[in-house]
Amino acid sequence: MNFHSDHVVGAHPKVMEALVAANQGSVPSYGNDPVSAALEEDLAVLFGREVRVFMTPTGTAANALSLAALTPRWGTIYAHSEAHVEMDECAAPEFYTGGAKLSLVPGDHGRMDLDQLAARLAAAPRGFVHAAQPAAITLTQATEAGTVYTPDQVRRAGAIAREQGVRLHMDGARFANACVHLGVAPAEITWDAGVDVLSFGSAKNGTLGAEAVVVFDPELAEAMGYLRKRAGLLIPKMRFLSAQFRAYLAGDLWLSLAGHANAMATRLAHGLQSLPGVSLAHPVEANELFVDLAEPAVAALEKAGAGFYRWAEPAPGTVRIRLVTSWATDPAEVDRFLDHASIAAAHGRR
Amino acid sequence: MNFHSDHVVGAHPKVMEALVAANQGSVPSYGNDPVSAALEEDLAVLFGREVRVFMTPTGTAANALSLAALTPRWGTIYAHSEAHVEMDECAAPEFYTGGAKLSLVPGDHGRMDLDQLAARLAAAPRGFVHAAQPAAITLTQATEAGTVYTPDQVRRAGAIAREQGVRLHMDGARFANACVHLGVAPAEITWDAGVDVLSFGSAKNGTLGAEAVVVFDPELAEAMGYLRKRAGLLIPKMRFLSAQFRAYLAGDLWLSLAGHANAMATRLAHGLQSLPGVSLAHPVEANELFVDLAEPAVAALEKAGAGFYRWAEPAPGTVRIRLVTSWATDPAEVDRFLDHASIAAAHGRR
Amino acid sequence: MNFHSDHVVGAHPKVMEALVAANQGSVPSYGNDPVSAALEEDLAVLFGREVRVFMTPTGTAANALSLAALTPRWGTIYAHSEAHVEMDECAAPEFYTGGAKLSLVPGDHGRMDLDQLAARLAAAPRGFVHAAQPAAITLTQATEAGTVYTPDQVRRAGAIAREQGVRLHMDGARFANACVHLGVAPAEITWDAGVDVLSFGSAKNGTLGAEAVVVFDPELAEAMGYLRKRAGLLIPKMRFLSAQFRAYLAGDLWLSLAGHANAMATRLAHGLQSLPGVSLAHPVEANELFVDLAEPAVAALEKAGAGFYRWAEPAPGTVRIRLVTSWATDPAEVDRFLDHASIAAAHGRR
Amino acid sequence: MNFHSDHVVGAHPKVMEALVAANQGSVPSYGNDPVSAALEEDLAVLFGREVRVFMTPTGTAANALSLAALTPRWGTIYAHSEAHVEMDECAAPEFYTGGAKLSLVPGDHGRMDLDQLAARLAAAPRGFVHAAQPAAITLTQATEAGTVYTPDQVRRAGAIAREQGVRLHMDGARFANACVHLGVAPAEITWDAGVDVLSFGSAKNGTLGAEAVVVFDPELAEAMGYLRKRAGLLIPKMRFLSAQFRAYLAGDLWLSLAGHANAMATRLAHGLQSLPGVSLAHPVEANELFVDLAEPAVAALEKAGAGFYRWAEPAPGTVRIRLVTSWATDPAEVDRFLDHASIAAAHGRR
Repeated sequence: MNFHSDHVVGAHPKVMEALVAANQGSVPSYGNDPVSAALEEDLAVLFGREVRVFMTPTGTAANALSLAALTPRWGTIYAHSEAHVEMDECAAPEFYTGGAKLSLVPGDHGRMDLDQLAARLAAAPRGFVHAAQPAAITLTQATEAGTVYTPDQVRRAGAIAREQGVRLHMDGARFANACVHLGVAPAEITWDAGVDVLSFGSAKNGTLGAEAVVVFDPELAEAMGYLRKRAGLLIPKMRFLSAQFRAYLAGDLWLSLAGHANAMATRLAHGLQSLPGVSLAHPVEANELFVDLAEPAVAALEKAGAGFYRWAEPAPGTVRIRLVTSWATDPAEVDRFLDHASIAAAHGRR
Repeated sequence: MNFHSDHVVGAHPKVMEALVAANQGSVPSYGNDPVSAALEEDLAVLFGREVRVFMTPTGTAANALSLAALTPRWGTIYAHSEAHVEMDECAAPEFYTGGAKLSLVPGDHGRMDLDQLAARLAAAPRGFVHAAQPAAITLTQATEAGTVYTPDQVRRAGAIAREQGVRLHMDGARFANACVHLGVAPAEITWDAGVDVLSFGSAKNGTLGAEAVVVFDPELAEAMGYLRKRAGLLIPKMRFLSAQFRAYLAGDLWLSLAGHANAMATRLAHGLQSLPGVSLAHPVEANELFVDLAEPAVAALEKAGAGFYRWAEPAPGTVRIRLVTSWATDPAEVDRFLDHASIAAAHGRR
Repeated sequence: MNFHSDHVVGAHPKVMEALVAANQGSVPSYGNDPVSAALEEDLAVLFGREVRVFMTPTGTAANALSLAALTPRWGTIYAHSEAHVEMDECAAPEFYTGGAKLSLVPGDHGRMDLDQLAARLAAAPRGFVHAAQPAAITLTQATEAGTVYTPDQVRRAGAIAREQGVRLHMDGARFANACVHLGVAPAEITWDAGVDVLSFGSAKNGTLGAEAVVVFDPELAEAMGYLRKRAGLLIPKMRFLSAQFRAYLAGDLWLSLAGHANAMATRLAHGLQSLPGVSLAHPVEANELFVDLAEPAVAALEKAGAGFYRWAEPAPGTVRIRLVTSWATDPAEVDRFLDHASIAAAHGRR
Repeated sequence: MNFHSDHVVGAHPKVMEALVAANQGSVPSYGNDPVSAALEEDLAVLFGREVRVFMTPTGTAANALSLAALTPRWGTIYAHSEAHVEMDECAAPEFYTGGAKLSLVPGDHGRMDLDQLAARLAAAPRGFVHAAQPAAITLTQATEAGTVYTPDQVRRAGAIAREQGVRLHMDGARFANACVHLGVAPAEITWDAGVDVLSFGSAKNGTLGAEAVVVFDPELAEAMGYLRKRAGLLIPKMRFLSAQFRAYLAGDLWLSLAGHANAMATRLAHGLQSLPGVSLAHPVEANELFVDLAEPAVAALEKAGAGFYRWAEPAPGTVRIRLVTSWATDPAEVDRFLDHASIAAAHGRR
């Protein structure tokens, strides 16, 4: 019953097999190997267009590197108030960009309010040296609240970006979960909707750690190469990252794994929302749930051995917990958790 | 006959086995797992004292992070003119430190001239706001020229550092090769000699990619934690890096692998130095050789399928090539290379 | 009728005289001159304690330098949502700190809501490497809304800072206006209330450009010296900045000039608030007014030759304008403006 | 007899008069005033082409800002080993560029060896992400050794820059002294020779402090505006800097002041070189002299009240002193110094 994070589980067997298989012979280092070349082709096929790929070891690195390529040092990056780039990256975007500014846009259920975004961008003074200049928007897909931007919403963000002369980045640490939820082709919610750079994560969904920065604007690629190297992110034995990602894509493994994780989240959601005194803070569209319940019920679940984080305290005596499912979540564990939750909820009401 | 680099080969089977073995169950992420805790203990035992360990995915990251913890933004870092931090890291130290300065010290055979180092430090104006202030020395062990600092030399550098009030970093991308050559305990050429932080590499000697920053001064650890995270270097599934490094240390695998690489380099050196018109640019003390020979001989070797880099042109018509051996170098390949070299050298003379 | 800013007027004659008088003979450069030494003593007397003084040429430089000395690269600085450091410095704090983060706290009338500030600081995760760490609070005194923090409010901010282990900076670009309004000794709203570093401005109140960073914590002084120099802010002929500031302080010139500016603002406020359809957005406590009136009235004032900025549009058809008075504002101009406003307001109503 | 620096004297009376004259009425701030507009025109006339002008308060700021506009964060800037940007700016170029690297080129008498420069640039690996990429050359004119690059030498540097695809910056802290020495039009040793950006100093030659960054490539101007503001260098009451510089240019004041300074240096040189045991380390082409003499002679000069810096110790018992003359140097002081030097030299020989 470990629902702490989708990082706590290991790698899928097929990924591990690919890693072992890649451990043959001598190949050029730093990404000049055949596996890395094949990965770039795989991703070109997946996205239906030419792409440039920069593998990185973490999602924070992928995001910070992307933003560094998209914004000048005096730029402003618009992000959701609860975005990972703001809350969980220890100012990595500020570091990588050389001091650009994050500007926070609120929005329900982890999605930026796009009207506010448009209004903020329209109101920002341009060509005015006293103010940092609008440079980029970053969307998280799926969001940090376990929800998903619709294709229309992403297109709207892309249109705003073009109108306002800024670039669009997508933090896709859980891109697979979003694609599965939407049932769309990756192109439809990325470059075709106006996304310039995508952080395409895989570690949360079955690899050991291999996050692809997928660059749709080839003009960004040259700077990206230097930015990655001077950040210490250019992995010598790159084949091992590339091999993981190839295995991740092969036979749509990434989609089937995310499909399982999403299904487990839905199963949890269905089970929980029928319990008395239990409510979901956000729609469950990917693999994260934010559940409000009485403190004693939370304590009871902890005592029962369930693993999760206490996230917030929406009201006195009420705790919001975060549950994360993964490709490896066992339905039996879900059901066991629901059993405990049922007892705890009943207990919490008394 | 691939002598391009010790990065072109894969991982040792025992490392791969450990990786596979680590892929069990759920564990806390970001280094709070049992494997990572055990690694810190392993390294404490190896060095004979308490240490703090920060795993990073590349040697450039390990070096830049170390230097960022050791120097203020207005500091000067003293490095050999040909050091990796200067030549091969695309200004990563400058980026990570927030704009500190590298000051280059020459020295034969890849080793800083310690008299010059001492003189430069003694002459640097202190408390003088117009000049960047001496902050750190960084030694590469083994050096970029395939040589090794003796324990006395490291101790001398440590004494200079203490006298001059600066910190001492060691870039140990090939630390194993140095330890094997010297036959000393790791402590003797690190903390006991005055080293504050060691970049302890493993990727060049048998892992997939796992570079340990070993911090001997516990006061540096807090800053290091934040510096690592904001650089995007904090790996979520850390167990996989830690497991590699544990396997690397277990049963002195690291020393036996480096011993093999060094032996292969020595075998090459012995074979080459007896050839007419062939000379070694530096003593061969680790796993790199820099060999001067006539251009036609170099071309002949390339034609024969040997892999190496043309490094420099020490004289018209003479090319210096770099040969790197590794834990995986096959003695038969060495001998085959020597056979070709013998023919090429004879040919080069005619 | 130029109410654009307190920067549009020149320097007070006494300041100019002091500048001319300082132009005698040879003196050491870079602040090692007798005038600069005397200034440090003057400020020590003014504040009733030892201080270290770092003159800078602009308020943005003074703020950014102060914050760079107060926060680590992974720090968070808490500022009002409308603070100059956020809105008008083109990400200078981010640049100078090496990528620290500004976190915006709302609050009425330009003053941070101190309850929210305390709650935000208390809620910020500490020792958690994923999040930038609380490092500093910056208050603007007088605020960007033309209001003033009371001594109690500053003391409260100081107490919060101490409790939460962060530093307190004061942006005193209009410090004189605040002191005059409150009628307190400078110490009472600075170091004695917990302020660690004060940006003590003078350019807006009668000098050509000389902003003193007054450091109350002597431990910060060493870093500040290097930070200032590497920012290109160490003025060679420092005597000319110091002489301006000495003249500014002499005979309480600073207070009498600010007293005049404040009085002119009050005169404007009194005249405006009695007009139909005109309202003040904020209390007028210093030398800035934010006035809401109908668009046609604003246009009429512009047509009459009045100089001011259109600041916002609080409601459709209503414009908020900013009026700034200064030490040089002529009461006759104020009255002329009020005459025009009276006509415009009457006109606006029809 | 104060020969410490050309910074120790004040401002020329005409500059001070212009400053006083500029103190009239209200004008827009931040450089949008008529004086600043007129200055840009003055400089366009002087250089015989359109220019963009960015006033800064110090030479370090002017240089760092220029280099920040000319080099990417992963760039290398080639400078003379003894250049001000390397020795006397506390790593400001590294800070402003976001971590670019200075690469030092030796050369006699303060002038970069242009053959070495060309060779170094030609040898630098391009498009190779492991190495910082050649981005800019910076020449100091007049040099830190008191010498001057000939127009041919500057043109050669410009040609090298174009061939190698890098930009050319000129640190003209003593540009006036160079122009006077060469007797050429400013264009001839700047844009017409390939210079992209000039730091045109004036503080060392008669102003209080006003260094013009003159941008010859209009494409750089937009970035420069933001870079200047976020560095805290955008002076609100800009008219006072611009007025100084206009006065400096008017009637060729700048050339006549530098002419005097150079003549005083020549007078010193002539007097000193005839003395026994005294030698000049560099040709005297501007307003700085580097003089080698016996230690007792130096001590005797110090005792006599002469002001200068001990610069180096070229041989045991021999001290190299630096003497700097200025627009304000009194010939009688020069002669008095020479009298003392004559006695000291005679004494030093005994």
